[in-house]
Amino acid sequence: MALENAQVLTIGIDLGGTNLRVAAYTPEHGVLNSITLRTRLEAGPPAVVDDMCDAIRELLHQYEEGRELAGIGVGSPGPLELPAGRLHHPPNLPGWDGFPLLEEMEKRLQRPVLLESDANVAALAEYALGLGKQLGVESLCMLTLGTGVGNGIILNGKLWHGATGMGGEAGHMTIHPDGPLCGCGNNGCLEACASATALVNAAERLIAAGKAPGLALMNSERGPLTARDLAEAAQLGDADAREIYAETGRALGICLAGLINILNLPLYVVGGGVANSWDLLSPAMFRELERRSYVYALTAPGRPASKGMPCGGTQVLPAKLGAEAGLLGACILPLYSLQASSVSA
Amino acid sequence: MALENAQVLTIGIDLGGTNLRVAAYTPEHGVLNSITLRTRLEAGPPAVVDDMCDAIRELLHQYEEGRELAGIGVGSPGPLELPAGRLHHPPNLPGWDGFPLLEEMEKRLQRPVLLESDANVAALAEYALGLGKQLGVESLCMLTLGTGVGNGIILNGKLWHGATGMGGEAGHMTIHPDGPLCGCGNNGCLEACASATALVNAAERLIAAGKAPGLALMNSERGPLTARDLAEAAQLGDADAREIYAETGRALGICLAGLINILNLPLYVVGGGVANSWDLLSPAMFRELERRSYVYALTAPGRPASKGMPCGGTQVLPAKLGAEAGLLGACILPLYSLQASSVSA
Repeated sequence: MALENAQVLTIGIDLGGTNLRVAAYTPEHGVLNSITLRTRLEAGPPAVVDDMCDAIRELLHQYEEGRELAGIGVGSPGPLELPAGRLHHPPNLPGWDGFPLLEEMEKRLQRPVLLESDANVAALAEYALGLGKQLGVESLCMLTLGTGVGNGIILNGKLWHGATGMGGEAGHMTIHPDGPLCGCGNNGCLEACASATALVNAAERLIAAGKAPGLALMNSERGPLTARDLAEAAQLGDADAREIYAETGRALGICLAGLINILNLPLYVVGGGVANSWDLLSPAMFRELERRSYVYALTAPGRPASKGMPCGGTQVLPAKLGAEAGLLGACILPLYSLQASSVSA
Repeated sequence: MALENAQVLTIGIDLGGTNLRVAAYTPEHGVLNSITLRTRLEAGPPAVVDDMCDAIRELLHQYEEGRELAGIGVGSPGPLELPAGRLHHPPNLPGWDGFPLLEEMEKRLQRPVLLESDANVAALAEYALGLGKQLGVESLCMLTLGTGVGNGIILNGKLWHGATGMGGEAGHMTIHPDGPLCGCGNNGCLEACASATALVNAAERLIAAGKAPGLALMNSERGPLTARDLAEAAQLGDADAREIYAETGRALGICLAGLINILNLPLYVVGGGVANSWDLLSPAMFRELERRSYVYALTAPGRPASKGMPCGGTQVLPAKLGAEAGLLGACILPLYSLQASSVSA
């Protein structure tokens, strides 16, 4: 298998709305070196692609000699149409609607480029190098709770693309039909209920309503609160901050209960900054899973129908790889590229 | 391909909580003959299996000569654990918890038996003989709105089993977290919001509250209302009945929006008796899809990302096969049995 071949080199790119990171990677040594640049959104998509390609060429110049380039993997904000490699109204890359990212990169580089959503490459990393590898599963679903909520699904060792590359958008499942407005225009998406942004918005709503005195004080002392501030307050026992995390856990549990009922996979991974507060989220989440997914209730570790599952039952766990998952996933994407799974019709 | 071979015979069984139907089938002539029996629940699972096997033997005696039996296909109420072929607390087969249906049938018949949930065999029929065949798609998701809500998912030509055979239970996705109680113990499942039972319950709640005068009158004249009565009232312009169907359409739309965002398949089929009122359901359903699934908004027929889809974009359509889908699906199951897809770990 390619991963075992020390001569293989890949380039991985994590394209974000704020920064872009480019890394050179070998299966044997991991990330050899990486370059971080500001994403010059104001200069327009072609200029950003020029920046990416310059960084790639620099790393190739440094590391390609004596190695064989397996490909260049890119994790990009979505929505992404595949196999066309074209973006559609990406909320984190304003001005990129309709931009043929894959084609523009291939044209400049004349090398094999592989493009996936940032959530998909994170799921691939967790599958190949993180919890998936540790538990020996071939299928998993990953939710990344960050500024937004990303989702990647791997079925039988293959990233699930669906018909147009847009499969795995569980971040926009409706959790509360009349809930907070989401950036996508819908109300009550998981992203509007369980992202870092949603946590902060929930706190700000409480403060504006004259509730949550502890958070109001923190807000007046520190300026605009972050999800990390809320986690700190919750860990110190602030009841309002604890309730915000519990409500986030409930929303996450409702979403995961649906995913378990639909997909019945052995492993669900929760990543992103919000998942670092696992002890604040997970009790409420597991209560929802037990109640809202009879598939979970029947297949959780130790339950009647878990015996046939080599990983010991349906596992719901915090991610193992942390913030580097996106860049690592882009780096290993060329090694797994033959395995992506689309719907043929 | 096996379906083209006139010498092939299959037996299909549609096991229900009220009746069981057993049919002999050939790809060339379809259903040759079928036997309908009452399901003797009061006699216990072994007696019901005896009845099934007697009927199977009768049909084999009649039709096996000169033909080759490809297998015996069974569609059973779930939840069903696969590959073990064991039932877990099936709500429609009280007393069957833990019953090893597959093993008991194989022991009696000494013939190849293939077992799937009733919703899965209906999806298989729609895939191979209904809308899936018509549109030429290899993947679809089917929801069957009957007494309960069944779900079957076919990915790249294979029934999706998941890790324990319990994939495709979107009938128990949470639509309204504080909605009506479902038979599974959860609140606000699709089944509690969009089954025939849910429609009748919604009408009864209105009548009990002194609302819905037209439905109250119908109820006093005809006795307990059915979903069909409500459809009739709605077609005649009763505003309360129309609103009940619209609310059902909204719940269905919320569920399908989630499924489209997660799976991004080319085809979603809605079957069962409730789907016969497509004109009452679908306007509200499509409004929810547009608003709650940006994947749908980007891939519906005529939209920017629909061009790469051979079936012309994401299709959401009423089922083609009607009430016979379950029995037909059981009949063709042995012809597709090698293609069922499980998660390996």
